[in-house]
Amino acid sequence: MRYFHNDYNRMCHPAVLEKMTAAFHEAMPGYGMDEHCAAAAQKVKELCGNKDLQVHFLTGGTQANLTVIDAALRPHQGALCAVTGHINVHETGAVEATGHKVIGLPSVDGKVTAAQVEQAAKFHLQDGDREHTVQPKLVYISDSTELGTVYTLQELQALSAVCKKYGYYLFLDGARLGYALASRDNDVTLADIAALCDVFYIGMTKGGAMFGECVVITNPVLAEDFRYLIKQHGGMLAKGWLLGLQMEALLQDDLYFKIARHADELADILRQTLQELGYPLFVEGSTNQVFPVLPVSILPELSKEVTFSPMDRVDEDHQAVRFCTSWANTEEEVQFLCQLLRKLSK
Amino acid sequence: MRYFHNDYNRMCHPAVLEKMTAAFHEAMPGYGMDEHCAAAAQKVKELCGNKDLQVHFLTGGTQANLTVIDAALRPHQGALCAVTGHINVHETGAVEATGHKVIGLPSVDGKVTAAQVEQAAKFHLQDGDREHTVQPKLVYISDSTELGTVYTLQELQALSAVCKKYGYYLFLDGARLGYALASRDNDVTLADIAALCDVFYIGMTKGGAMFGECVVITNPVLAEDFRYLIKQHGGMLAKGWLLGLQMEALLQDDLYFKIARHADELADILRQTLQELGYPLFVEGSTNQVFPVLPVSILPELSKEVTFSPMDRVDEDHQAVRFCTSWANTEEEVQFLCQLLRKLSK
Amino acid sequence: MRYFHNDYNRMCHPAVLEKMTAAFHEAMPGYGMDEHCAAAAQKVKELCGNKDLQVHFLTGGTQANLTVIDAALRPHQGALCAVTGHINVHETGAVEATGHKVIGLPSVDGKVTAAQVEQAAKFHLQDGDREHTVQPKLVYISDSTELGTVYTLQELQALSAVCKKYGYYLFLDGARLGYALASRDNDVTLADIAALCDVFYIGMTKGGAMFGECVVITNPVLAEDFRYLIKQHGGMLAKGWLLGLQMEALLQDDLYFKIARHADELADILRQTLQELGYPLFVEGSTNQVFPVLPVSILPELSKEVTFSPMDRVDEDHQAVRFCTSWANTEEEVQFLCQLLRKLSK
Amino acid sequence: MRYFHNDYNRMCHPAVLEKMTAAFHEAMPGYGMDEHCAAAAQKVKELCGNKDLQVHFLTGGTQANLTVIDAALRPHQGALCAVTGHINVHETGAVEATGHKVIGLPSVDGKVTAAQVEQAAKFHLQDGDREHTVQPKLVYISDSTELGTVYTLQELQALSAVCKKYGYYLFLDGARLGYALASRDNDVTLADIAALCDVFYIGMTKGGAMFGECVVITNPVLAEDFRYLIKQHGGMLAKGWLLGLQMEALLQDDLYFKIARHADELADILRQTLQELGYPLFVEGSTNQVFPVLPVSILPELSKEVTFSPMDRVDEDHQAVRFCTSWANTEEEVQFLCQLLRKLSK
Repeated sequence: MRYFHNDYNRMCHPAVLEKMTAAFHEAMPGYGMDEHCAAAAQKVKELCGNKDLQVHFLTGGTQANLTVIDAALRPHQGALCAVTGHINVHETGAVEATGHKVIGLPSVDGKVTAAQVEQAAKFHLQDGDREHTVQPKLVYISDSTELGTVYTLQELQALSAVCKKYGYYLFLDGARLGYALASRDNDVTLADIAALCDVFYIGMTKGGAMFGECVVITNPVLAEDFRYLIKQHGGMLAKGWLLGLQMEALLQDDLYFKIARHADELADILRQTLQELGYPLFVEGSTNQVFPVLPVSILPELSKEVTFSPMDRVDEDHQAVRFCTSWANTEEEVQFLCQLLRKLSK
Repeated sequence: MRYFHNDYNRMCHPAVLEKMTAAFHEAMPGYGMDEHCAAAAQKVKELCGNKDLQVHFLTGGTQANLTVIDAALRPHQGALCAVTGHINVHETGAVEATGHKVIGLPSVDGKVTAAQVEQAAKFHLQDGDREHTVQPKLVYISDSTELGTVYTLQELQALSAVCKKYGYYLFLDGARLGYALASRDNDVTLADIAALCDVFYIGMTKGGAMFGECVVITNPVLAEDFRYLIKQHGGMLAKGWLLGLQMEALLQDDLYFKIARHADELADILRQTLQELGYPLFVEGSTNQVFPVLPVSILPELSKEVTFSPMDRVDEDHQAVRFCTSWANTEEEVQFLCQLLRKLSK
Repeated sequence: MRYFHNDYNRMCHPAVLEKMTAAFHEAMPGYGMDEHCAAAAQKVKELCGNKDLQVHFLTGGTQANLTVIDAALRPHQGALCAVTGHINVHETGAVEATGHKVIGLPSVDGKVTAAQVEQAAKFHLQDGDREHTVQPKLVYISDSTELGTVYTLQELQALSAVCKKYGYYLFLDGARLGYALASRDNDVTLADIAALCDVFYIGMTKGGAMFGECVVITNPVLAEDFRYLIKQHGGMLAKGWLLGLQMEALLQDDLYFKIARHADELADILRQTLQELGYPLFVEGSTNQVFPVLPVSILPELSKEVTFSPMDRVDEDHQAVRFCTSWANTEEEVQFLCQLLRKLSK
Repeated sequence: MRYFHNDYNRMCHPAVLEKMTAAFHEAMPGYGMDEHCAAAAQKVKELCGNKDLQVHFLTGGTQANLTVIDAALRPHQGALCAVTGHINVHETGAVEATGHKVIGLPSVDGKVTAAQVEQAAKFHLQDGDREHTVQPKLVYISDSTELGTVYTLQELQALSAVCKKYGYYLFLDGARLGYALASRDNDVTLADIAALCDVFYIGMTKGGAMFGECVVITNPVLAEDFRYLIKQHGGMLAKGWLLGLQMEALLQDDLYFKIARHADELADILRQTLQELGYPLFVEGSTNQVFPVLPVSILPELSKEVTFSPMDRVDEDHQAVRFCTSWANTEEEVQFLCQLLRKLSK
């Protein structure tokens, strides 16, 4: 079996386990107050070109999202995001459980536009009874998005500008940030993101680690007392240095970015084959997630040899599915998948 | 000035103030444990044809909605409703503030259909990762709706059936229930509603009282410990008998229904004039709210003599507005409004 | 029967009903944006000697407490109060339901001292793992307290100073503020309270109104967007002018203070009789609540002619009870109660 | 330096890392739906002698506590626990953040008694205004407690009985359950705990794992939809099999219990020396946490060679401190500590 159903089906990149094994005998202070977290944070600051930002390590994406948003908002405030945004559809109402409305904006490619934010802001401010509605205060975006697309620098700059104009926070969910930055469509650097967002995270779980998300806070208002929030929401790992260790491994010699580039390139090979075979993509994209619309008839055979995730049924005969690539896939595996698709398409 | 901007711009029906004045010298136990609340509850039970239901008096609609929904749901559960539902758009995220997602279903007339609930239920159950999404558990409807439409008996029966099928609660926001029941489109009785809904309320604020909503719980599961929830959410009025007194007044000699019929009939007069004048309605309806689309050009003159509420701007030259009638409006006032519209339309 | 079981067992002071009746025919804008609320707010500002403060009208004390505290705190912050504080013992966890811990401080007289606040603040700051504990941020006090005692100016000044020192908000629950200000032990003015507290409220429900609490916010940080919070928590009355009208009535010719002084004086008559009879007070006090420890043996006879509230059982033969006086009690009623006690004590 | 400041300052027991390394190349389904979690759950069921219970793996103790309690309680309900309970003092109000009051009961040894629960239950039920107070519904205990003490079988049976009597859930926080079960004072088995508690967890983080807590639910009411709650609170690890793997390692050949016994025995050696030296214990105990009261004068020298945690200052010259032992400590290290104490005490 070859595994393409997600990008977190293998333990971790070998370098991560090596790093952990090498540190096996160390005794460390708890809760992330250790030298590994400090070293990884230092490295992140360098990559972001900003020594004043705050770095925190959490264990997962939902945890990061709910903790950041709860830290940012007053009770009557809500988060704008694409209707497809992870917080809107796939976190069991985690943000609402902290008391805040998630306000979904229509989106076909998983992205939010500055114009949408401007419109939402104006709509709220023009309402004479605005205190009867949720006050937008934070814009949540994902890069790469849940649909595998990426933001351009221009798009991020426009979002950042409109957020500043209305006093909103811009929060970038980077669960798959590596895959975005490594994409052929990308023209954004980590430093750009740090300069344009109030808070974001560098996804570790889907980028080579066992687990973890590296939250970066550039806005001092959001940074205040953030550790209290982590603890309160159950996100403070007792042996926090496990997260620092993994991030150290991922940032050494650009491993994090190499992993992502490898996966994006494998995805491009698959996309090329799908194009050859005339299978449309549910959504265009350039990262490690590929969403072809396939004939339902070939799925049973396909699933005997490779794993993938079912998405929406497009019509009676066609189904969108998702293939994910990661550091754990080899070019041979992708070629095998491409061959299999060619064979089943005859 | 004639007032049509809402149905709560006057203190109360004279009979309500009379009733209160007559009881001025009484000393009463607090928190709704008094004989007036008991008598009003008894009357509600009779009207509903169900002596086992629970009756509680709260002070307002948002309070009633958030208290009922919070009482009904476990943390991971959410409320289905029309996107236009009051809880979704006009309560500052009150339901989310209790931790629960409001799941908006598309609607052009303010109503939810049984088919939509069925689809949402199936969609959730068919999801292999369903624990990553909010579990629907309650269907919130308004009768009359926020757009002035009413549910038919058949529609309510279908909603009730699909709710029972999936174990959902059916909750009817009756802030304007009188206006629905008195509508010429209505074929539903209070007893039907009590038989088909797990919980609903009989709107007092918009139906002749100074304030208050009469919450009726027919499902014993929801009834358990409900007074704790009222208290916790700040909805337990110290001098609770003020609510019982008002409901006694409204239910005496069918006053509540007479008030509503009067207002609906006035609205129909207005609707007829609008039709004559060729002004389309933003939404068809038969209750006390009328939503014509008017030329922007006549609004300045119009607003010198009558009050109304602006709704959506339809195009550059047209604006939807809302006129509300209530017990406080006379036929003369409505005729005045009709004349004014005729004059301005020349 | 004579009623002393609480200070909210009668509808309202006659002047309040008169004021409401006089305004019966007025049409008003909703949600507190009306001229009566504005006029009452203006009067409150004058009494407080501060024209920049914000005035809001809510319907009840629990609602006021939870709304103010939720508006003031970030998620990881908590409220310090006496263990006997209303929010700690008698609001069904309303504050916790907004996500915040109530931190009870030991108290025998219902009061919090500046020294206690200082100690709690230091204890938190000295904790190396302080992010593992709730951060104190607000001090909740009641004046008069739940045990009928009052704060002196010196005590309030000390509390205010320690709150400023540590960046805490000082919040005074004034459900019975009138009774405190009218007490022979009092040396505080409304202007003092406005100068020393960040937020407080002037209790209307227990001070002559049908319902209502007048929230006064002096700290601009707390004032921001407060109406959103009121609406979200279900506290925004549709016919908000009912609250403004009542407060206008209460503030006319110092009625609010006269009502309180009357009640406090009646309570003093009762206290004198209790002293004569050798009945100790559970707690000393000078406001409208009197807490004698009575022989259990006389309670059955007593309760045939007067109402009162049972408090703690002190020992097998003695029970603390509460008598409340209000505007609705006459001196004759209190003399009757005194006579009855004398008779039963023989 | 020798490390005794806590029992989670080293990565994990070697057998855990070995197990993980051996599974390095496996591809697994996400979110705990894998064979390792299943195998570990099966082993837990066998140890508990109950094949019907549910087993879930979470990453930390605060997360486990808040998720279990939020799953168990309706909004108006609260958790009884010792004032020293972890949820009451050291989780930044995590339980309150889910909306529930933590009701602290006085305790000098960290334990809750059945009599205290009975008293709290009666107190609530006897209150005529009970809906004005939080309804107790769950009893939270820790074994071993935060003060290193353990519950006897008789104590647990009595707690279970009183909980059943009043319809309360009994929840045992077993962050240090191994140390309790291995203690010389213990007469309880895992099967006893499973039979007496509605829900508990077997602590992994402090018992040899890198991270993790194994939640065991025996009451089907609590088990319903529990995975939704895990996800909502950010506790669902994407690579959930990491938790299953670690638990498999810990349960193989009774490793979990051997680790605990080793640590408890080392702690007893220390306790013996402290007794010899005449240093009183702040709290008696028999698990891996030792709380001596030491002269302040020896602390500077002591802290040069060993780590420990400061507790309460007892008087000007004496300070309570905590020493923890774990699988990572050797007898040599403890002997070194004992010698050091002897030397410094001369």
